[in-house]
Amino acid sequence: MALLYLSTPTRLSVWQPLFDAEGETLIAGEEAVTDPAEVTAIACWQPPKDLSRYPNLRAVISVGAGVDHLPPMPEGVALSRTLAPGIEGMVRDWVVMASLMLHRDMPAYLDQAQRGEWRGHPVPLAASRRVGILGMGRIGTLAAQSLQALGFEVAGLSRSGKSGVVPMFPATDFDGFLARTDLLICLLPLTDETRGILNAKTFSALPKGAALVHAGRGAHLDADALRAALDSEQMSTAMLDVTDPEPLPADHWMWRDPRVIVTPHIAAQTDAAEGARHALSVMRALRDGTPLPGEVDPARGY
Amino acid sequence: MALLYLSTPTRLSVWQPLFDAEGETLIAGEEAVTDPAEVTAIACWQPPKDLSRYPNLRAVISVGAGVDHLPPMPEGVALSRTLAPGIEGMVRDWVVMASLMLHRDMPAYLDQAQRGEWRGHPVPLAASRRVGILGMGRIGTLAAQSLQALGFEVAGLSRSGKSGVVPMFPATDFDGFLARTDLLICLLPLTDETRGILNAKTFSALPKGAALVHAGRGAHLDADALRAALDSEQMSTAMLDVTDPEPLPADHWMWRDPRVIVTPHIAAQTDAAEGARHALSVMRALRDGTPLPGEVDPARGY
Repeated sequence: MALLYLSTPTRLSVWQPLFDAEGETLIAGEEAVTDPAEVTAIACWQPPKDLSRYPNLRAVISVGAGVDHLPPMPEGVALSRTLAPGIEGMVRDWVVMASLMLHRDMPAYLDQAQRGEWRGHPVPLAASRRVGILGMGRIGTLAAQSLQALGFEVAGLSRSGKSGVVPMFPATDFDGFLARTDLLICLLPLTDETRGILNAKTFSALPKGAALVHAGRGAHLDADALRAALDSEQMSTAMLDVTDPEPLPADHWMWRDPRVIVTPHIAAQTDAAEGARHALSVMRALRDGTPLPGEVDPARGY
Repeated sequence: MALLYLSTPTRLSVWQPLFDAEGETLIAGEEAVTDPAEVTAIACWQPPKDLSRYPNLRAVISVGAGVDHLPPMPEGVALSRTLAPGIEGMVRDWVVMASLMLHRDMPAYLDQAQRGEWRGHPVPLAASRRVGILGMGRIGTLAAQSLQALGFEVAGLSRSGKSGVVPMFPATDFDGFLARTDLLICLLPLTDETRGILNAKTFSALPKGAALVHAGRGAHLDADALRAALDSEQMSTAMLDVTDPEPLPADHWMWRDPRVIVTPHIAAQTDAAEGARHALSVMRALRDGTPLPGEVDPARGY
């Protein structure tokens, strides 16, 4: 029973001692595998193309929170995404920052600063801004709590229609949710259902002048539709941590548009120790036959 | 008994109906005063040069939160600064935004964005950043609570050494406070004691690479000392909502330095209705002989 490790050397220097301390076997790199039957789990960003080499493989662990980049798993192989409280807090921090930056007109002030232009705009109260969160999982819930504590009027959209820390709209009332949302936050996983969800129709259902904070996946967003909505003033500003493609080409219009702020997919990074602890918890669950931490439902896609 | 109103016409359109509704007299502009003996309070940013014209004047109300721009009051005239929950929340929002922006390397990302450069830096956990707040009044306390809720390790400095929502350092241990502060937030009132407090000595007592968030007053900061500290990498970044002078001249180095972000004194604006309600509460207190809301202690200067 061993974990095949296919990630960076930097991260390995953290994982190896933690695996040693727990007495779990870690094999670093496919070329180091002497007996493929030993491998029960693979930790990776991209798995090897041919998983059939490992007859006893039972789990693939994505070292990031997302799994949309991974191919479907063969029968009998579970997929686990790294759950790490650190990641969740990091994304929450980025989302709160981005929401405040759009709420408080930072795109305009940063643009003015380039010209040395000292000019104030009316300062809105947080209570006057209605925030809507798409994707009310663990991170969405954290963000909702923080933004509500700052006085924003927060609501969420949930496919399951579950209740939450803020008022929730069911997915069947997407238009009702959008109609009351001045600042739309996307934290959705990327699935066939959510791909392209930030499109012209969605933008047109928001109140005029709405803003977008996007920390989902680049492929959620139709960038041309965003540009058209900004040009028509249907949308005011956007802050994006994810783009399609990544890296965003240096000559892309979004880098240069004063209404858009792009950060290079840095809302979160898995802390190496947290990632190793998650992998160890998967190894323990495989051994004990208990439910796999972070297991992805292939039907839902997250 | 009347209030002499010396502020903008826009604000007047909000004040007048609120005064009418309470049956309080509001006189708009000195030229409208027919009987100077009637004036018991003046609401203004700058008071008239000669206050002796008003024999029954008992209070001057600053329509902003600060009073450092006002001359000393004559004997028998109290000074009241507008207390408005809206202002406090606005400054808190700006401070939380600015703290997150420096915590999450936004100066570097904004600089990179100008070149279309997609490059991530290590993402720090909020828990790894020690925030220190200078000025633990109502706004400082709000900011401390919000930043603590995001996971930052927050402490405050208090002249009185009072206890608070976060660990407090007494003013006598300024150096101890600075030595544990990675991100310094200044929310001090401007007094003879605090003028120039953000200077070379203060910066050198911070851990190397510290950051500054400044929403006090421009005259707290020695801008040349900040520049030297940035150049020596003693300080990493700064975000300033106040400068000296204001407006900051268009050719000032701070506008163009990628390590510094300047906003044009927009952390808060007094909401007109909140300002009027404060003035009405002062009128009531004068009538009833109760303590004056927002009364400034001339000895402390705030």
